[in-house]
Amino acid sequence: MSHAGKQSFVFENPPTIAAHVSVAGPREGAGPLGKWFDTVLEDDLLGQKSWEKAESEMLRQCAQEAVRASGMPETEIQAFLSGDLNDQIIASGFCARALKTPFLGLYGACSTFVQGLVLASALMDGGQLENALVGASSHFCTAERQFRMPLEMGTQRTPSAQWTATAAGCAVLRKGAPKEKGLRITAGTLGRVVDYHIKDANHMGAAMAPAVRDCIRAHFADTGRKMGEDYDYIFTGDLGWIGREILLELLDECGLHVPPERLIDCGASLFSKEQDPHAGGSGCGCVASVSCSWVMKRMEQGEFSRALLVGSGAMLSPTSGMQGESIPSIAYAAGLEER
Amino acid sequence: MSHAGKQSFVFENPPTIAAHVSVAGPREGAGPLGKWFDTVLEDDLLGQKSWEKAESEMLRQCAQEAVRASGMPETEIQAFLSGDLNDQIIASGFCARALKTPFLGLYGACSTFVQGLVLASALMDGGQLENALVGASSHFCTAERQFRMPLEMGTQRTPSAQWTATAAGCAVLRKGAPKEKGLRITAGTLGRVVDYHIKDANHMGAAMAPAVRDCIRAHFADTGRKMGEDYDYIFTGDLGWIGREILLELLDECGLHVPPERLIDCGASLFSKEQDPHAGGSGCGCVASVSCSWVMKRMEQGEFSRALLVGSGAMLSPTSGMQGESIPSIAYAAGLEER
Repeated sequence: MSHAGKQSFVFENPPTIAAHVSVAGPREGAGPLGKWFDTVLEDDLLGQKSWEKAESEMLRQCAQEAVRASGMPETEIQAFLSGDLNDQIIASGFCARALKTPFLGLYGACSTFVQGLVLASALMDGGQLENALVGASSHFCTAERQFRMPLEMGTQRTPSAQWTATAAGCAVLRKGAPKEKGLRITAGTLGRVVDYHIKDANHMGAAMAPAVRDCIRAHFADTGRKMGEDYDYIFTGDLGWIGREILLELLDECGLHVPPERLIDCGASLFSKEQDPHAGGSGCGCVASVSCSWVMKRMEQGEFSRALLVGSGAMLSPTSGMQGESIPSIAYAAGLEER
Repeated sequence: MSHAGKQSFVFENPPTIAAHVSVAGPREGAGPLGKWFDTVLEDDLLGQKSWEKAESEMLRQCAQEAVRASGMPETEIQAFLSGDLNDQIIASGFCARALKTPFLGLYGACSTFVQGLVLASALMDGGQLENALVGASSHFCTAERQFRMPLEMGTQRTPSAQWTATAAGCAVLRKGAPKEKGLRITAGTLGRVVDYHIKDANHMGAAMAPAVRDCIRAHFADTGRKMGEDYDYIFTGDLGWIGREILLELLDECGLHVPPERLIDCGASLFSKEQDPHAGGSGCGCVASVSCSWVMKRMEQGEFSRALLVGSGAMLSPTSGMQGESIPSIAYAAGLEER
């Protein structure tokens, strides 16, 4: 029984991250984290006939590379948990068709990768799964035409808008032996939907920051863990520069002081400001690719050993926006530890 | 350790279905199963300003009624697992905002309800959750305008097209005591994506039948269970009349003979042919509402005691269809038993 408090799990048998692979687009590869990605695409169309097919192909390459890196045969993978921003999560659905593994389609908008990590870890901790492949992807061109404007229009972006990353990240988790060394997922928190009545789809960081605060607060309250004592860093994904500032204020407001240098946002790290991504990176693939590269590789290299990874998602659709609805948001947290 | 075989779980601590509630639209209420639904709507707009808001409101009413019927306070619900056909699963997202419980957004198209039952049961069996609320919804008017044509056009439907049900179903699961009487979920199977290259979005039954066969075959192979000995009926949702015939042939083809009178399809049961639903009902809400009413109530009344519930989903999007893609499909199976 690993349920700790109302929303969280502390795993008795923390699963091991057996492999993690990231793929990033050309613009993402040219950013500050470029050298950390396993693959940087030269062609963000990947030789496909549409952006949607390209995104699915990018995720497939990433997923199969992660399985290969884990040393497990693809036929042994017991579940593929994945989602993306495309309507009906087609990037993941078509990827699952290629993989032929049991599939659990998830939707948590940009939080999906962390949602998958928490869910897979919980299933593994309870003995339901021996291993799982967790993935997520996003593509600037599929997201722009679906959520905003056709790229061909050359629409001017507002300064608070985030830039959807063309990227994918996949991790293979497997049941860990108790004293085994390596990267483990030690705890997880399931978020609640929080809505602070932000209606501007070009201001996602502001919409998501309250859900991230709610999730971090629940994680610390449920598990009794503390910043500093139990975590060296919190990595959020993806609030961008504006949302990160709001989160710092919201955390202070409820007495949860996190030193600003310890709160890193994947979306605020993926691009440099000179690349003009406006408020920073976003998309399911942002936190997935950044955590599967920059975060996990640095942990394995011994730079730090404990991190709380918090994925956040804005659960709106173009239809709900047009109908005057505000943006309900959610966040999930996974505690990572390099032992 | 309850993982049985490659895709299935046999639960050591089968969760109890503490409550199940169904809501159906006026047309669904006028069909053969009308008397079994807990609520039949008079107004399928539910007093809302849009069909999308109406669907979310229908799901919210259904979910809150299920929690009330379980006798548990809403604040004790540890997870709400739900999905729907709307882009970015907004019916479930907005419902989760109203409920304020931890939320796991799922997408398995029309299979989502059974996907949720299997996932929640697995988490409960392993001790990760004490309880969970599982739901799904669909609405004829949201689905038509999103996937097909605006209703106002009065487009002629093809005979093989299915009719998306305006309906919702929600079940509250809780950890069962070993010898407790009642309705239990004893096993579950995670499906794989199967694609037989059907490209006609008005022929979903044909697209989904191979995935249903694949899932049923895996369930029997993994668990060693047998039709007749271990299950009185298989309930599929939703293949409709055409897809059900195809499934019977596909099952025969691989030596898995299921007597036709023992293979019941929720979509082929929801409407009478006189109501002219063409190939039968469909939508996430169809299998959810039919299993939460007709199936579970008859089991509780002692009419039969063991059923395999198989939810099937077509993982296409309007975009993938326009790009010439075929329809990848998936199915999940949950073994139900009244003890």
